[in-house]
Amino acid sequence: MKICKNIRSLKIDLNKIQKNKCLSLIPTMGYLHLGHLSLIKKAKKRKEFTVVSIFINPKQFGPEEDLDKYPVNIKHDIEKLTKLKVDLLFIPKKKEIFDYKISSYRYKPLKIENILCGINRPNYFPGVADIIIRLFSIINPDKSYFGEKDFQQYFFVKTLLKKLGFKSKVISSKTIREKSGLAMSSRNQYLSIKEIKIANKLYKFLKLNKKEINDKKNISKSLAKYKNELLNAGFTKIDYLEVRTDDLRKANINSNNKRLFAAVFINETRLIDNIRV
Amino acid sequence: MKICKNIRSLKIDLNKIQKNKCLSLIPTMGYLHLGHLSLIKKAKKRKEFTVVSIFINPKQFGPEEDLDKYPVNIKHDIEKLTKLKVDLLFIPKKKEIFDYKISSYRYKPLKIENILCGINRPNYFPGVADIIIRLFSIINPDKSYFGEKDFQQYFFVKTLLKKLGFKSKVISSKTIREKSGLAMSSRNQYLSIKEIKIANKLYKFLKLNKKEINDKKNISKSLAKYKNELLNAGFTKIDYLEVRTDDLRKANINSNNKRLFAAVFINETRLIDNIRV
Repeated sequence: MKICKNIRSLKIDLNKIQKNKCLSLIPTMGYLHLGHLSLIKKAKKRKEFTVVSIFINPKQFGPEEDLDKYPVNIKHDIEKLTKLKVDLLFIPKKKEIFDYKISSYRYKPLKIENILCGINRPNYFPGVADIIIRLFSIINPDKSYFGEKDFQQYFFVKTLLKKLGFKSKVISSKTIREKSGLAMSSRNQYLSIKEIKIANKLYKFLKLNKKEINDKKNISKSLAKYKNELLNAGFTKIDYLEVRTDDLRKANINSNNKRLFAAVFINETRLIDNIRV
Repeated sequence: MKICKNIRSLKIDLNKIQKNKCLSLIPTMGYLHLGHLSLIKKAKKRKEFTVVSIFINPKQFGPEEDLDKYPVNIKHDIEKLTKLKVDLLFIPKKKEIFDYKISSYRYKPLKIENILCGINRPNYFPGVADIIIRLFSIINPDKSYFGEKDFQQYFFVKTLLKKLGFKSKVISSKTIREKSGLAMSSRNQYLSIKEIKIANKLYKFLKLNKKEINDKKNISKSLAKYKNELLNAGFTKIDYLEVRTDDLRKANINSNNKRLFAAVFINETRLIDNIRV
């Protein structure tokens, strides 16, 4: 696996790829888990030139969030990626990324920045947009892969890149879970044994209420009840629990392609998940 | 173990300590290894109220250095510190530390900023001074513990705090090593198996040449020869290899308390070590 730590060496390597080879990007913040690895395996299976980026984007974190303690273990990441025969790993420095001039693309809000994971986090999706535009300008992949755990992020990136005229096809992949059903996340490592037991209840809870949500006329009443149940189950705060369509519009009983989205806290750790209902 | 994530909660807790209890600080950048733990054990054995801080100080890193990939694993750190019954762990956010007003202490260069680990890194020791003054202003410990691997840093901090009139006694503790002799360091985790084999040679090399350095009239000639030997042994760059006294003055054959200081690269990983000669 080739490792590029600056844009110049990356571009030299990308120029060497065969013209008809599909270039795929899996952007990550490192501390890779099986969710990331499943995206990579997908690209490798399709014989694509597979680029993984590791970049902890400071702009995605709020002032009260966990940037300072976000886990980092580049060595283990490199070991995992080498095993999967990833073609190229891009680990740029923050300074070089934010100094990079992106003249041709200008982000305008997509109007989904303030719902779900954007509630109370006004900088989150603009921060995602900033780094995505930079990475995709630099790498210009044919395809990119995102996990469905961060469904809103996948949809946001897809919409953003389409609107700005990038060629990249944005592909989503199903959430990879622990045996207990807990969605894999780098943040799970913050959880104590006691907290994991609570976290394990989230997916089970979403599945349990799937049917009722699909059948009920008044979803909001059920949601209020569910929030209480989550708090009783040990979650310390509910950031949101909402039913929306696949394109993130508010859902009612007649909507197709509905999803139940949840963001909950266990003490200071924030967990998200979602399922199709 | 109490965990404080902001200055306010820290100060409330520090105010509760018995008046005659010795307050000790072990400042770290996390990703704790046995070197850190030996400092902590020392304080705990002496029944001191033991505070550990975890703070990755961005000002200590140059633009070409490894801030972005410095390893982080707060969860494992907390597990280790809990086992040692550390009294208080302080994990502040960068913003709060650098917003903290330190009106009464002003750092003036100590004239050891540009030697050894300061060569070509003009921001390193001013960066150390900045964070040390902030942490010691906030915590005001009676004692603090530093490992001898970073001997220059220990001496710099000791001199700085004394000059600024801090009460804290700065204590050094012998370098903790792997069985092979390799000095423990968070950065060792960057090394591949092949690179570790090279790294293991550094301490053996320092010990081997100890006697010759003590006896020789012209040390500089020997040092030039040693540098070549290190390069032949697989180290890719020698940052410095110098003999200095315990107060970091240039040593000659008549000097007492000499130390042999080395900083070497294996590819992109920089390792330091030193021994008394």
